[in-house]
Amino acid sequence: MDTAQTHVPSDLEIARQAKPKPIEEVATSLGIPAQALFHYGPHMAKVLATPPAPRGKLILVTAMTPTPAGEGKTTVAIGLTEALGKLGKKVAVALREPSLGPVFGIKGGATGGGYAQVLPMEEINLHFTGDFHAITSAVNLLSAMVDNHLHQGNALGLDVRRIEVKRALDMNDRALRQVIVGLGGPGQGVPREAGFEITVASEVMAIMSLADSLSDLQERLGRIRVGYNQAGQPVYARDLGAEGAMTVLLKQAFYPNLVQTLEHQPAFVHMGPFGNIAHGTNSVVATRMALGYADYVVTEAGFGSDLGAEKYINLVCRRAGFAPQAVVLVATMRALRFHGGQDEYTQPNPEAVRQGLPNLAKHIENVRLWGYPPVLAFNRFPSDTPQELELVRAFAEEQGVRVSFSEVHARGGAGGTELAQMVLEALENPGQPRFTYGLEQPLEEKIARIAQQVYGAAKVEYTQEARKALKRLEKEGCSQMPVIIAKAAASLSDNPRLRGRPEGFSVTVTDLKPKCGAGFVVAYMGEIMTMPGLPKEPAAIRIGLDEEGQIRGLF
Amino acid sequence: MDTAQTHVPSDLEIARQAKPKPIEEVATSLGIPAQALFHYGPHMAKVLATPPAPRGKLILVTAMTPTPAGEGKTTVAIGLTEALGKLGKKVAVALREPSLGPVFGIKGGATGGGYAQVLPMEEINLHFTGDFHAITSAVNLLSAMVDNHLHQGNALGLDVRRIEVKRALDMNDRALRQVIVGLGGPGQGVPREAGFEITVASEVMAIMSLADSLSDLQERLGRIRVGYNQAGQPVYARDLGAEGAMTVLLKQAFYPNLVQTLEHQPAFVHMGPFGNIAHGTNSVVATRMALGYADYVVTEAGFGSDLGAEKYINLVCRRAGFAPQAVVLVATMRALRFHGGQDEYTQPNPEAVRQGLPNLAKHIENVRLWGYPPVLAFNRFPSDTPQELELVRAFAEEQGVRVSFSEVHARGGAGGTELAQMVLEALENPGQPRFTYGLEQPLEEKIARIAQQVYGAAKVEYTQEARKALKRLEKEGCSQMPVIIAKAAASLSDNPRLRGRPEGFSVTVTDLKPKCGAGFVVAYMGEIMTMPGLPKEPAAIRIGLDEEGQIRGLF
Repeated sequence: MDTAQTHVPSDLEIARQAKPKPIEEVATSLGIPAQALFHYGPHMAKVLATPPAPRGKLILVTAMTPTPAGEGKTTVAIGLTEALGKLGKKVAVALREPSLGPVFGIKGGATGGGYAQVLPMEEINLHFTGDFHAITSAVNLLSAMVDNHLHQGNALGLDVRRIEVKRALDMNDRALRQVIVGLGGPGQGVPREAGFEITVASEVMAIMSLADSLSDLQERLGRIRVGYNQAGQPVYARDLGAEGAMTVLLKQAFYPNLVQTLEHQPAFVHMGPFGNIAHGTNSVVATRMALGYADYVVTEAGFGSDLGAEKYINLVCRRAGFAPQAVVLVATMRALRFHGGQDEYTQPNPEAVRQGLPNLAKHIENVRLWGYPPVLAFNRFPSDTPQELELVRAFAEEQGVRVSFSEVHARGGAGGTELAQMVLEALENPGQPRFTYGLEQPLEEKIARIAQQVYGAAKVEYTQEARKALKRLEKEGCSQMPVIIAKAAASLSDNPRLRGRPEGFSVTVTDLKPKCGAGFVVAYMGEIMTMPGLPKEPAAIRIGLDEEGQIRGLF
Repeated sequence: MDTAQTHVPSDLEIARQAKPKPIEEVATSLGIPAQALFHYGPHMAKVLATPPAPRGKLILVTAMTPTPAGEGKTTVAIGLTEALGKLGKKVAVALREPSLGPVFGIKGGATGGGYAQVLPMEEINLHFTGDFHAITSAVNLLSAMVDNHLHQGNALGLDVRRIEVKRALDMNDRALRQVIVGLGGPGQGVPREAGFEITVASEVMAIMSLADSLSDLQERLGRIRVGYNQAGQPVYARDLGAEGAMTVLLKQAFYPNLVQTLEHQPAFVHMGPFGNIAHGTNSVVATRMALGYADYVVTEAGFGSDLGAEKYINLVCRRAGFAPQAVVLVATMRALRFHGGQDEYTQPNPEAVRQGLPNLAKHIENVRLWGYPPVLAFNRFPSDTPQELELVRAFAEEQGVRVSFSEVHARGGAGGTELAQMVLEALENPGQPRFTYGLEQPLEEKIARIAQQVYGAAKVEYTQEARKALKRLEKEGCSQMPVIIAKAAASLSDNPRLRGRPEGFSVTVTDLKPKCGAGFVVAYMGEIMTMPGLPKEPAAIRIGLDEEGQIRGLF
């Protein structure tokens, strides 16, 4: 069991040796008619069908507070799908699309790992079916129309100092965070401060993943708040007439993408909003498509349960009308060591593991808070020692949770059948979501409930700016919206240095911004980067085509 | 004949009523194996095959000096293809891909018109197979790596004031022409002046359309000159290690796209460099693919013969090793009236037509200069009067050129069989290209020959800046490169107000820039806009989805 994992070939080697099935075979295995497919080569397609009513049982995969390397939620979600497939179940997985930007920053894809991957890996990690490019175009069309409006006489009286929408690129490019546009004289537009976000951080990405239909999409795009006019009134995308053309750009991208796992289970990989300033999960339409055709649907939400799962329950499920019936919580020895205070978290350290367990305990508490008895999926690594594993086993018993030591990375579905059995058991008494807050509660109360119940904070403080923003939001009628809290992912608190299970801490709301199209208010607890930068040695330097025309250095 | 055209339905209506064949049928009709196709839905594919050796006869479509509305070169090229198909010939057309930017500016697509269109029209005019998005990504990756290099210590000693590469968007967005990036303090990059071009104006677009193979592509990308270091030495993309990752982004886009005409002839629609600061024609790989499978290949080059055809002969053909065997010259009554001094060029005006004929005469002379007896394709419009048509007929006789009054817009292939017959006749004595200049001649001499022989200029002048640039280029070893002249498209001269056939004029070179990756020097005669702007009422405002989810307002 330990040694098996040390001999796993690289993700790229495994992916290249795989023999994916023609995508229409994958589709028809699920009951999707072949004529509903819009093909992108032999192994990718968009599903243009209207799905039957939901029938599947939804399984949400979340995690304890992650290390910077991530704890393998995607890998577990894919491996669990493969395992359920192995048990003869009609199962599909619903995942986020990877962002292109990070591919050239720090080596690594976002399509799972080892023998728990989705295929075709290279295509999915590069342009895939063009969804993110379409979103980039739609975002940039809106800004082009804003700046053109300023240039052509500014009939709406836009206040150039208070334009909120940014442009987007699917690229890690820090120099575009803050820019001045419109320089060069009267023929070149109106000078103003502006900025770019990475595409996944755009409101359009959040909208695409929440919209129910193309007409809902068009309407939501029209509600994007562009900024304010000189009289202090909000101006929306619909005031510029931009939402129709944006929708036309997004029409094809709106349909879910179908690919497959290494073991040929259908995988709906669609949309990928940031898990921080947005809700960090795949699209509602893709999940609904999966639930319409499969008996079991595995999905995942970004970061730890305090970020991804909280938003999944309180925002996505409440909006979409579906909900998990079981929740899987991913943990790793690396994360336990990290939360036990070790920076060298790849080295065995039973004492650190012991001290890191309270972090996991809080996430177990959170999942229970939302109405689910969690199934613990412990993602095995070769460096895990028997002594450490025993600590985890004893802890799980003490907590009264099922735990499976998953080897899906090393063995694919075969390494996850125990986990799959436990999930099937859990589904026999399906959970029901309990929301952390009511939509009718004031924003302040919503934030307080999340902070106290989910993060374990003692107190919520507000900066002066946040207080002002809160008043403005109330005045503008945004009080009934759900809240997206943007905070550090590396801690249960808003301070990334507070590891483990901090107690007695307070969190500070620094700003609030409405995303009227997406339909939520973002509450910032500190600065959140929406445009990453490249590292000193970008992965791009090692990427290229080799003599045979094969991609090298990508993963 | 006159009335027929008045009843032509809109391009969009025609395109929507069309019944395109499955693309594998179109491919196999040409002998392309079905397994070489990478599908994008039922009617678009990339051809991944290595084509057989060229066998087809190449027919170049060029035009007289166009009005701002364009004279229908694409429509004639497609219609001629349909007509050759009707005559039982194995024919294909090779065209540029439309740019997304202008679609939201001024209503109108770029896939032909009337019954001479390529399908599927909406997809081709929107994201198509994602080629331009891939180019946008590659261009922006290079700039992200430049700015990251500056931020991370600038080991290459780049001079921030002399960085030449720009970012790109496939969008009409004038506010991005001149920007300052890297604002916000030490964590946000190094402030500098920068800018964006529309994707079709990027050097990467020119490279993609000229490269022979993926390895040639990678090498050329490495040769892109990024700017200068503080010692005044040029710095290239390869010095940043960017060319490999750029190639990986462009790998799929490099393969030609296959679609079809309304009458099911194969259409290779691939790449679309600006016809001004680049060479304005489709990719070398697509033309080669077409020549490998078809007996006849129709292609077109941008603007009038002085811009597009000149570059096609002297740059593209010389590089690619193929050449036209016949040349079709497109003229319209509108353009004749325009060059006869009429701004209201849609109104009949025989006297203006007579006065406009010398412009057409110069283009006939140009085509002969390059070694071809032109076939005149007169693109009919409903407003053309018999008196005007008679003037044209007499002129053609006097000039000794074949002329066909084409009705491909109104009638498709059936409206172009006379033209097709004339082209087949011309091919019986195939032309051979005569280059306007030798590659070994100094840049100044190359420019002088083009200006005097092709434009009819008396003299070439240089600004002081251009003189300096010329010296620098000689010092940097760029003298052997072919020249791309970027000048006004609306005149044979460099002054857009000089209509007809100006004489005794001088042209002024204002700057010269090397495009080391594309392998040419751009000689500017005046300011050339590489990022368009949106008009006061952008077409985007009228575009959207209607109740049935159909696109409205796009064309």
